[in-house]
Amino acid sequence: MSGNTLGQSFTVTTFGESHGPALGAVVDGCPPGLALSAADIQPDLERRRTGTSKFTSQRQEPDAVKLLSGVFEGRTTGAPIALLVENTDQRSRDYDKIKDRFRPGHADYAYQQKYGFRDYRGGGRSSARVTVATVAAGAIARKYLRETLGLAVTGWLSRMGPIDLQAVDPSAAGSNPFFCPDPSRVKELEDYLWQLRRDGDSIGARVTAVASNVPAGLGEPMFDRIDADLAHALMGINAAKAVEIGDGVEVARQRGSDHRDELTPAGFRSNHDGGTLGGITSGQDVVVHVTFKPTSSIQVPGLTVDVTGQPVEIVTTGRHDPCVGLRAVPIVEAMMLIVLMDHHLRHRAQCADVVSPTPDITQQR
Amino acid sequence: MSGNTLGQSFTVTTFGESHGPALGAVVDGCPPGLALSAADIQPDLERRRTGTSKFTSQRQEPDAVKLLSGVFEGRTTGAPIALLVENTDQRSRDYDKIKDRFRPGHADYAYQQKYGFRDYRGGGRSSARVTVATVAAGAIARKYLRETLGLAVTGWLSRMGPIDLQAVDPSAAGSNPFFCPDPSRVKELEDYLWQLRRDGDSIGARVTAVASNVPAGLGEPMFDRIDADLAHALMGINAAKAVEIGDGVEVARQRGSDHRDELTPAGFRSNHDGGTLGGITSGQDVVVHVTFKPTSSIQVPGLTVDVTGQPVEIVTTGRHDPCVGLRAVPIVEAMMLIVLMDHHLRHRAQCADVVSPTPDITQQR
Amino acid sequence: MSGNTLGQSFTVTTFGESHGPALGAVVDGCPPGLALSAADIQPDLERRRTGTSKFTSQRQEPDAVKLLSGVFEGRTTGAPIALLVENTDQRSRDYDKIKDRFRPGHADYAYQQKYGFRDYRGGGRSSARVTVATVAAGAIARKYLRETLGLAVTGWLSRMGPIDLQAVDPSAAGSNPFFCPDPSRVKELEDYLWQLRRDGDSIGARVTAVASNVPAGLGEPMFDRIDADLAHALMGINAAKAVEIGDGVEVARQRGSDHRDELTPAGFRSNHDGGTLGGITSGQDVVVHVTFKPTSSIQVPGLTVDVTGQPVEIVTTGRHDPCVGLRAVPIVEAMMLIVLMDHHLRHRAQCADVVSPTPDITQQR
Amino acid sequence: MSGNTLGQSFTVTTFGESHGPALGAVVDGCPPGLALSAADIQPDLERRRTGTSKFTSQRQEPDAVKLLSGVFEGRTTGAPIALLVENTDQRSRDYDKIKDRFRPGHADYAYQQKYGFRDYRGGGRSSARVTVATVAAGAIARKYLRETLGLAVTGWLSRMGPIDLQAVDPSAAGSNPFFCPDPSRVKELEDYLWQLRRDGDSIGARVTAVASNVPAGLGEPMFDRIDADLAHALMGINAAKAVEIGDGVEVARQRGSDHRDELTPAGFRSNHDGGTLGGITSGQDVVVHVTFKPTSSIQVPGLTVDVTGQPVEIVTTGRHDPCVGLRAVPIVEAMMLIVLMDHHLRHRAQCADVVSPTPDITQQR
Repeated sequence: MSGNTLGQSFTVTTFGESHGPALGAVVDGCPPGLALSAADIQPDLERRRTGTSKFTSQRQEPDAVKLLSGVFEGRTTGAPIALLVENTDQRSRDYDKIKDRFRPGHADYAYQQKYGFRDYRGGGRSSARVTVATVAAGAIARKYLRETLGLAVTGWLSRMGPIDLQAVDPSAAGSNPFFCPDPSRVKELEDYLWQLRRDGDSIGARVTAVASNVPAGLGEPMFDRIDADLAHALMGINAAKAVEIGDGVEVARQRGSDHRDELTPAGFRSNHDGGTLGGITSGQDVVVHVTFKPTSSIQVPGLTVDVTGQPVEIVTTGRHDPCVGLRAVPIVEAMMLIVLMDHHLRHRAQCADVVSPTPDITQQR
Repeated sequence: MSGNTLGQSFTVTTFGESHGPALGAVVDGCPPGLALSAADIQPDLERRRTGTSKFTSQRQEPDAVKLLSGVFEGRTTGAPIALLVENTDQRSRDYDKIKDRFRPGHADYAYQQKYGFRDYRGGGRSSARVTVATVAAGAIARKYLRETLGLAVTGWLSRMGPIDLQAVDPSAAGSNPFFCPDPSRVKELEDYLWQLRRDGDSIGARVTAVASNVPAGLGEPMFDRIDADLAHALMGINAAKAVEIGDGVEVARQRGSDHRDELTPAGFRSNHDGGTLGGITSGQDVVVHVTFKPTSSIQVPGLTVDVTGQPVEIVTTGRHDPCVGLRAVPIVEAMMLIVLMDHHLRHRAQCADVVSPTPDITQQR
Repeated sequence: MSGNTLGQSFTVTTFGESHGPALGAVVDGCPPGLALSAADIQPDLERRRTGTSKFTSQRQEPDAVKLLSGVFEGRTTGAPIALLVENTDQRSRDYDKIKDRFRPGHADYAYQQKYGFRDYRGGGRSSARVTVATVAAGAIARKYLRETLGLAVTGWLSRMGPIDLQAVDPSAAGSNPFFCPDPSRVKELEDYLWQLRRDGDSIGARVTAVASNVPAGLGEPMFDRIDADLAHALMGINAAKAVEIGDGVEVARQRGSDHRDELTPAGFRSNHDGGTLGGITSGQDVVVHVTFKPTSSIQVPGLTVDVTGQPVEIVTTGRHDPCVGLRAVPIVEAMMLIVLMDHHLRHRAQCADVVSPTPDITQQR
Repeated sequence: MSGNTLGQSFTVTTFGESHGPALGAVVDGCPPGLALSAADIQPDLERRRTGTSKFTSQRQEPDAVKLLSGVFEGRTTGAPIALLVENTDQRSRDYDKIKDRFRPGHADYAYQQKYGFRDYRGGGRSSARVTVATVAAGAIARKYLRETLGLAVTGWLSRMGPIDLQAVDPSAAGSNPFFCPDPSRVKELEDYLWQLRRDGDSIGARVTAVASNVPAGLGEPMFDRIDADLAHALMGINAAKAVEIGDGVEVARQRGSDHRDELTPAGFRSNHDGGTLGGITSGQDVVVHVTFKPTSSIQVPGLTVDVTGQPVEIVTTGRHDPCVGLRAVPIVEAMMLIVLMDHHLRHRAQCADVVSPTPDITQQR
């Protein structure tokens, strides 16, 4: 595969650029018989959409998804499902000024060296705009997993620069533009972002997501552990620089006697491991954290080189997010859903006949 | 693929269990004409080997690798290279006591629920013993990349519990049993581990690795970014709970004006991004960090359930590492080498014809 | 992968049904810098198009292809290329009468048992209509291979029922509706088809295709031999029942002393093997034959069962080809081009450094 | 994947050369809980073994298979199963005379041009010897499919040069060295082969194999049709030049009214399609034919070139089969079993939940 396909049994192949005519995905391997229409996908696209608050890019895209195939009389047929979202608000003229120079921290220079030239309009294929296709595909996985397993994935902003946020009320993350899980701190985030905007600067962030009602047994040793495949998918999101499972980087400080999650007939006594053991789901909640770097498209002037290698100054204008992490929550959820869906199908390929003599101590289902 | 194969153009398929007759790997896609013998692989296996210090498992395995195929008259032929390492010091009787119960923090319970039963001897396929095959495969990638690109990968212990280590002298990491890059602090590590041993406990750790002389252009957008594939490989190592690229989790605290690596004709001015931009190598050093949890095989008694779901107590004896991170350095290096090798081949499949008009500012080669 | 993707380094993922809104393909891994527009693809679609003679389905589709991504300023960027062809002449009402019964010889019953229900309009995903996407993708491979290697693929009708056709003038195949390579026999084919039409019946056919200027060395032992991958692609065409390489089924009658293609400094003395040796291209022309069954959509009444398993009679009306082989030539060519393109890229992934000491005896380039 | 792996959910990766120390396979994705030992595999290896009659190569290999992993207490664990067969009767000195020249009809020249040099001992990786690994892997699929589905695959010699053989008694194929399904004609085959041997020549052959008790629904449209994947696997066998499904090349002569297999509540009325419809199994027997070319290793002198491109004469001595098709039956069966096994697992990944409202008219199970 050539890099634009995710998954093995449930595969998502995406295409499209920031300023091309359209973006989309082909979802292959979806079980037949799932009730599906654009209305099932649109809510996830809404959550990802720009232009909905002052703190995201002001690009206005309706992001209306069309289903071109794979659905008949309202149900999936088992054939590949093609999803299409048209671009309508491309302002490519904004990008003439970066046509011949490389934005620091962006993919520009790396793409130039890899391909010999690049689609400079809005970053082309490297733009966060392309995640619209992934989110659309994730919505299909979300519906299937919810309806067949009761599985749910919920994400929120857990850190933005100096501000750490506790999951006081994860369900509240959907009702504010920052995906903040603590309603009492929304004002603090807003103030911080206004100051950042005045500085013409940007900030990093961390997103946390939890999958509940995950059956035990998903994940394939040796290399395709569930945590390895989650890491692959999540590190593949634009601007991601770290992926943690469960307690993540904190485990370097932990002792075995503190870390290990003891088992009892009533379930595990803790969840430091974040729902995976040996790369296989344990039936506990699967917990991930993804850290995103600050966007490099800022008003602070910086040094760079042009396409001939000469030094030049750069100031990025255009429509950019001061904190890309703010919009990453639906993308993290989508990636997680796609990986869990793929592994649900992969698991039953090999192990459909298995009956374990051991009771499920997580008793979640 | 069913989980035991890594890579697409350069593929590594491993097999074997902790207490089976042998472990091994089939390496497919290796370019022909590479001079190769067991002597090229053995040094990496030595670095990974147990029983070489008081602070690793006392299991004594010679880990002598045999090449069963793919080499003729001392050179790789282009056919798959089969590597075999026999197990000689299996003491399976040690494991009778965990036969019917699940060790907390281990894969036992998850394997049981996935497969319906498990090879309980030393953890079977979930044992760190199986990484011997990965390390052997990585040695082939190491040789090819060094000889054709001058590429080198070096790793070290950067954290163990409360102790943070600076890379004062990375080359020193090879000459002490802790892979400590700061010779002045070896004694401190040793003291800490003695105390841990007296406590019958274990501790987490972080490993850092750097690849130098990496050509710009490796990595495939969208999903198979180089950082995504590194995350996949590294999170696939036993006990890994976090993977970071460049500044990793620290970027959540950084501003764009601090984070972005400015470009000049003489090279980048910093390397916060750890050598990747938009998922493609930039020509800078690729920097990764992997955090490992403390092993759960400790002498401190703990709670668990048995195969019928009844509560029981467990005390793990047997031969275990108090800090699995200590032995992870060669494994992290191997995984990184395999991923870089695979992407070097994948890159030239698509882009062998490309000539960029832009000079290589990293001037490393 | 879930069945709708072909290739590994150059991958083609298709979607769409006979009577859905659109069909298309995502082509991933195309080398960057190739000049490409819809005008490069349209001619191949024209050759495949229905409604252009009295002897193919009378469905009228303009088959105008749109490029949705992967091309910037007239050149491929290295990003996935999405191709879209809209359906405009769906007459789904034709299919109400087969809604509840299975056409013999068609995929209907097999799809029903696999997926539990089926898109019965025009055969849904199993329709030959979907090959429009494959042909569009093949046109990209054709352009790249022609421009970089001088490689060309040409196909023709070599058999239709009782009529065997010699390749008197393969270039003439493009100028008659039967892809007949012998202009003197076009009338005979026409007469035969008129009689068939009067009988309300259909007939089988064989297509031959030849790739010239194929470099030696393409194909991967063991399983991904070039002939194996050609067989996979060609047997994957609707209605294909046999794939032959070189002399094909005739080799069962041949002696080794007759069959073997002797080598001389001026080239091979014959080409019984059809351009492959040990699954690797030899530099000779690659020769394939594909045999297609007669379409089962005929006016002759037949027996079948309905969706409840009850016996019923069936007469297929609607717009059908009396000989599907007539339209298969562009599809065979496209499949062959995609496989050769994929293996060209795969070969250079592993063997880009190879220089053989042996001169190329085929001297074709 | 790099060419030496077959399958997606049930994958077989093979390694080894004709004259290396060992050959083997890694079988990944096998369902857990299958009772398995070397004794289950050995009978298939015996059927494939050389040196058992005067009409196959006189190389004497015990072909004793070892299971190195994936089995615990007599059952498969779900971990990869490594199979090893040691070479014991390598007579490499036989091959010194072909070291510097290319045998016509063999892979020698193609390998040389692909890899720059070659393992000339017995053909190295291109030798039919390597199929021992495939046959061993197929034996695992055979056992699983027989025990869980009652599925059986049986093959026989259906043509050898001028001699066509009817399947008078397929079960008799196992009791004569020619896999002849008509006991009355064994003498005729023997006489023909003695004459061939006196002539120092070889002959082509065709093998037929039938899978019975195949469930309806296996196979993935679009590209991974069951017939396409069978064609891939079967054309990947050494010396294969044609693959046919059902009536194969004969369908070019057939009319739709003759070809189509009508359905009745009591089953299909014929099986011209060989058990597949639209690339999906129909529940009928799956019927394949593979045509093998005559081996090119004959005593009749021939022309060729040496590694410097100079013309030379060649006479192949050594231990060779006058008709490679004679030994191909177990290999064809193994390939078919691996493909059916893979698709059984792939099918349930996507469609485990499906219940068709239509009764299974094949009523075989």
